[in-house]
Amino acid sequence: MSRTDAVSLDRQDPLAKYRELFQLEEHDIYLAGHSLGVMQKKVVEKMMLMLVEQWGGQGVLSWNTSGWIQLPERLGALIAPLIGAVSDEVIVADSTTINLYKLLLAAVQRQAGRNVILTDTDNFPADLYVAEAIAELIPDVRIILCDRSDIVSKLNQQTAVLMLTHTDYRTGEVYAMKGLTELAHAHGALTLFDLSHSAGVQSIDLNECGVDLAVGCTYKYLNGGPGSPAFLYVAKRHHGYLYSPVNGWMGHVSPFKFLNRYAPAEGVARFLGGTPPVLSMCALEYSLQVFADISIRDVRKKSLALGEFMIEQMTNKCSGMQLISPAKADDRGGHLAFLHDDAAEVVEYLQANKIVCDFRVPNVIRFGLSPLYVRYVDIFDVVEVLSRRGVVQ
Amino acid sequence: MSRTDAVSLDRQDPLAKYRELFQLEEHDIYLAGHSLGVMQKKVVEKMMLMLVEQWGGQGVLSWNTSGWIQLPERLGALIAPLIGAVSDEVIVADSTTINLYKLLLAAVQRQAGRNVILTDTDNFPADLYVAEAIAELIPDVRIILCDRSDIVSKLNQQTAVLMLTHTDYRTGEVYAMKGLTELAHAHGALTLFDLSHSAGVQSIDLNECGVDLAVGCTYKYLNGGPGSPAFLYVAKRHHGYLYSPVNGWMGHVSPFKFLNRYAPAEGVARFLGGTPPVLSMCALEYSLQVFADISIRDVRKKSLALGEFMIEQMTNKCSGMQLISPAKADDRGGHLAFLHDDAAEVVEYLQANKIVCDFRVPNVIRFGLSPLYVRYVDIFDVVEVLSRRGVVQ
Repeated sequence: MSRTDAVSLDRQDPLAKYRELFQLEEHDIYLAGHSLGVMQKKVVEKMMLMLVEQWGGQGVLSWNTSGWIQLPERLGALIAPLIGAVSDEVIVADSTTINLYKLLLAAVQRQAGRNVILTDTDNFPADLYVAEAIAELIPDVRIILCDRSDIVSKLNQQTAVLMLTHTDYRTGEVYAMKGLTELAHAHGALTLFDLSHSAGVQSIDLNECGVDLAVGCTYKYLNGGPGSPAFLYVAKRHHGYLYSPVNGWMGHVSPFKFLNRYAPAEGVARFLGGTPPVLSMCALEYSLQVFADISIRDVRKKSLALGEFMIEQMTNKCSGMQLISPAKADDRGGHLAFLHDDAAEVVEYLQANKIVCDFRVPNVIRFGLSPLYVRYVDIFDVVEVLSRRGVVQ
Repeated sequence: MSRTDAVSLDRQDPLAKYRELFQLEEHDIYLAGHSLGVMQKKVVEKMMLMLVEQWGGQGVLSWNTSGWIQLPERLGALIAPLIGAVSDEVIVADSTTINLYKLLLAAVQRQAGRNVILTDTDNFPADLYVAEAIAELIPDVRIILCDRSDIVSKLNQQTAVLMLTHTDYRTGEVYAMKGLTELAHAHGALTLFDLSHSAGVQSIDLNECGVDLAVGCTYKYLNGGPGSPAFLYVAKRHHGYLYSPVNGWMGHVSPFKFLNRYAPAEGVARFLGGTPPVLSMCALEYSLQVFADISIRDVRKKSLALGEFMIEQMTNKCSGMQLISPAKADDRGGHLAFLHDDAAEVVEYLQANKIVCDFRVPNVIRFGLSPLYVRYVDIFDVVEVLSRRGVVQ
């Protein structure tokens, strides 16, 4: 496989045309889309217009005239088809941490007679912190933390919620969403998936898998901007009896009546919190529009092909890099992870060569293969640069 | 008092020069700064640069190279002097609702043997919703909701937290922060003030008043932009033992070690949540910079003078408008409220005359007199326009 072959793969790639929408120079190699997706160029102009015409021009009236008040639902409707949900099952609000807190606490409280949050030791630490907070808050609730391979055997009549991160933030390993949800349901447990490393790069079908609850960030493969607000999903069958434990004014059934008592809105909107950060919400909306034309299955297809290509190249040329992502494509998410004895130095070396990727303690190098702007030739070049580094080859 | 006299007051106003920083035409009269402050013109250019150079140009590296990771503390340090706090007592994170939830729950849980959240029936409904959520969550905790005039008499050994909104969102009446805090402390209660309608327009001294906890929004008189993230304040003496009940990753003592157990950061930083909305945070930072040159006492002085001027003009010319804000200037915040039988129509009539103000159910008209861009002549003109409306005069 030569560099010309890689260029040829890009020429045949139906998603290749989207790269020019992003603020990337020809030589830019950005493999950190699993941490923060690249900005689309149009976001700058759109945000300028938004600032001048909406905040600047209309001021407070923009809450209605520019539809700010509907942003949480409107953004939810843009994300829903990417995760296999119905529009009115998804809203955008707060951060992933806060959304996880709201859903996990709501679920635990409604699972009478069950007191266990079951999760795995490789879950994203921030998610474990939230579970820990809830276990400290609610008497008797406890966390069972086990190896991935033991999850199934730990499910039982005590399990209130099986809380998992769909795609492992280090290895990229993907949980079998449908099978685990069926098993959890068979034990009477609810499932809550964090889709932060999955949304926008994998073809997820929450409804088809029967998933109960989900959260996720929007700044990785959804390219929504740094810290762009997170989404949450509540399956329709739970809308009647699950309530937000925080009681945000936007989740009130009649927020503009200014009533002293809280009364939850219908549906998933009751999980809305306080006033959302409109600038970040607007940037997210402009960013999400690109997905209207794109099949998420095509995204997944390219993601897997990029992964296969990188593994093959790396295996052939870089003996010091040890793959810790699953070898089987179907078991992988959108990023690849390798162990290297000098991981931190390797990442610095790549950065010095204008290649952005990312390091996780103690010795993990992650490459985010975001299909809307990563090229086969990028991967060829990264491996070439790596193979020229003495200690790697 | 003629229009020329009003123009003359503007000429003598030391804050008059700041108006040109804001996106306002000569004829614009914007009296909704207590709902959403006007945008400063430089925010557009600054945000463009931020987008192109930071998110667009540096991508994920900007978390360090552009100092995004320090935004919560940096913004807290900008707000601290405006509310009489020390820099490391204030952070910016989440929404007012979420911050209130974190502080109120933390405080209630640490007030052993006390189970009452004391507040008043005129408190901002969203704040009451949060208290209600906590009362539902924690066994035995209950809310005592009473008239403003009864607050003092309801303080007792059961009071865990006295939770008040410093400036009433309808009438603009201001609570005596110091006196009430001293009384609360005498009963062993903590005080928690919502400063949403106060920060940026009143000269507040949380430290001097001995206030324990505070929250507030940044999009009113601080002009931070729609839904810009909120601040929270924890008095230094409480840093050792108050913990966030939510456990956000940014509040971890070592967030980048990715440890599975939560361990709170030192100080107020432990109340940080998940990843913050960086675009909204940056717009807030650019907006707050104006206060570096301004004495908040001068802002308060002009705010009161504008209020006096409006009351005098309204009394002389508009018989249908009944002031419900306190007559005594010291008891008022930054906005004035009037009752009118046709309040909704009056607000629409003013809007049709290019005057932005705001309506609250059922019959309240509020005028936000934001001293950095509201002129005496604006007030003169508003009253003139009102006096020409048949049903008012």
